[in-house]
Amino acid sequence: MAGNEFDLINRYFKAQPVGRKDVVLGIGDDAAVITIPENSQLVVTTDTMVAGNHFLPDADPVKVAHKALASNLSDLAAMGAIPAWCSLALTIPTVDEVWLKGFCEGFYKLSEYYHVQLIGGDTTKGPLSITITLQGFIPAGKAICRHGANAGDWLYVTGNLGDSAAGLDVILRGNSPSNDIENTLLNRHYYSTPRVLAGQALRSVASAALDISDGLIADLSHILKASGVSAVLNANELPLSDELLQYAGSREAAAKLALRSGEEYELCFTVPESHRGALDAALAHTNTPVTCIGQIRHGEGINVMWEGKEVDWSLSGWDHFSS
Amino acid sequence: MAGNEFDLINRYFKAQPVGRKDVVLGIGDDAAVITIPENSQLVVTTDTMVAGNHFLPDADPVKVAHKALASNLSDLAAMGAIPAWCSLALTIPTVDEVWLKGFCEGFYKLSEYYHVQLIGGDTTKGPLSITITLQGFIPAGKAICRHGANAGDWLYVTGNLGDSAAGLDVILRGNSPSNDIENTLLNRHYYSTPRVLAGQALRSVASAALDISDGLIADLSHILKASGVSAVLNANELPLSDELLQYAGSREAAAKLALRSGEEYELCFTVPESHRGALDAALAHTNTPVTCIGQIRHGEGINVMWEGKEVDWSLSGWDHFSS
Repeated sequence: MAGNEFDLINRYFKAQPVGRKDVVLGIGDDAAVITIPENSQLVVTTDTMVAGNHFLPDADPVKVAHKALASNLSDLAAMGAIPAWCSLALTIPTVDEVWLKGFCEGFYKLSEYYHVQLIGGDTTKGPLSITITLQGFIPAGKAICRHGANAGDWLYVTGNLGDSAAGLDVILRGNSPSNDIENTLLNRHYYSTPRVLAGQALRSVASAALDISDGLIADLSHILKASGVSAVLNANELPLSDELLQYAGSREAAAKLALRSGEEYELCFTVPESHRGALDAALAHTNTPVTCIGQIRHGEGINVMWEGKEVDWSLSGWDHFSS
Repeated sequence: MAGNEFDLINRYFKAQPVGRKDVVLGIGDDAAVITIPENSQLVVTTDTMVAGNHFLPDADPVKVAHKALASNLSDLAAMGAIPAWCSLALTIPTVDEVWLKGFCEGFYKLSEYYHVQLIGGDTTKGPLSITITLQGFIPAGKAICRHGANAGDWLYVTGNLGDSAAGLDVILRGNSPSNDIENTLLNRHYYSTPRVLAGQALRSVASAALDISDGLIADLSHILKASGVSAVLNANELPLSDELLQYAGSREAAAKLALRSGEEYELCFTVPESHRGALDAALAHTNTPVTCIGQIRHGEGINVMWEGKEVDWSLSGWDHFSS
């Protein structure tokens, strides 16, 4: 009875390495059954990656899997949630065992690290695409939302910005990376670090947060619109890696990349003046660098400052439909 | 800042009609936040439908949406769960407003009927495909699983079987339905009724259950393997509609269709002898016809009986990878 579809699901996905006690029923029935911790709320996110749009069709499946799961982990991080369970909808043109093996390797390495159990999904035939629905939980009422920013709050980001866009640029030029710098940027594009621990630590200090998936300007706009405020963004303060500075050739070019670089999976968040002193202590155990890049104001829009003057760099975020 | 992608999501998906009190945060943040009822477990299922595989690329989007959500509702029904929240990952080649409007019409009609709130998802550019992750809940410990069947239990199905395969046959012949019978079968293929109320009612009487998505023989095999038992299936007892009997031309041809017809979304379930008397009472308020089609035995495999003799009809289920 078992056709290829069933065989495939059984072989690769039942072998997933994480076994959580709160999973009452995992892969193999019509649906999974799980138990949520008491006094907790469920946090749910979904991301799709399509070959030819979010990654090249011949991209290394290890990297593709990492990116697909990392983007979801990053969404939960931005809420301050603890990731726990995921469903994988995998659409593949053919049953390519080498590809599947690589995909599982990348997927399981990351899921194991964050103790996320694959509880089900669907494997179908069609143009290559990956949809993951990741779930986690959070103490009731403690989610960090986009709508909590207030005038006077300070604007922060984690890590460095711009490396992902530079890495994508290396990929799209179609050649192998020609030096160590390009190779580093390429890996930063593929192997982003979801800020899961930092997100949880920010629950007690941040007034609003999101992860940078469409570019800082585009994503910051979401916070501003949801909160009904504006921001002054000092582009001179943007955290830029040495590799990006060398690749871009100038600090200004690097800053422009950093402002619109999508798929960074760093967090952008706001902190009230009263909580600013607690920020370093809250993040101390997470080993996450953060940089203050501006401040929230009344009004609407973003004022980008460069060397003390407001600039109009005609920045726009990453839009999969306009590309 | 808002590109087409954001506009589109806002316009069509924020208009979803269901507002549940347990949704703390719905569409519009990095993730949704929901509250699970006390003493309940979460039940999660995912189904993908790909254009050209699960439906024709030019299929009516109203019907496509119904089928995509109904297949997920059917999975929760098979567990005995109460559907509540869903995420939609929609991949579309272009922003076609007529198509989107039709899709939302079909999706919202069904989601409203079952009081399922769309809490998030992802809209991406690429070959048309739809992945829905549907969640619901169930009193702790009450899920109906596949592994609970025992020798002696009676084997049942809800509704009629075979109409979906006949309707698909009408579609694949490529012409418009030529008469009322073909039109009825076509609609049964597209507008299956997920057995949500029946599934909940079966919690107290069924020992195992699943929904028929790959064909009765294929799906029954899942129950048998999971439970370590076999079944005798009396094909003369299969519930067949008048339309199917007329379309197939003979009772035997109709029965063969019924055994392998996928995407029926009827339930197949087993009932211990001791609970058989309670079955009618449990289902009374659900207006769901059920038919006993066989019995569970020790051993393995399925013995299909026709007019008192075992037959080998070389039946196999629907495998999207072998087609």
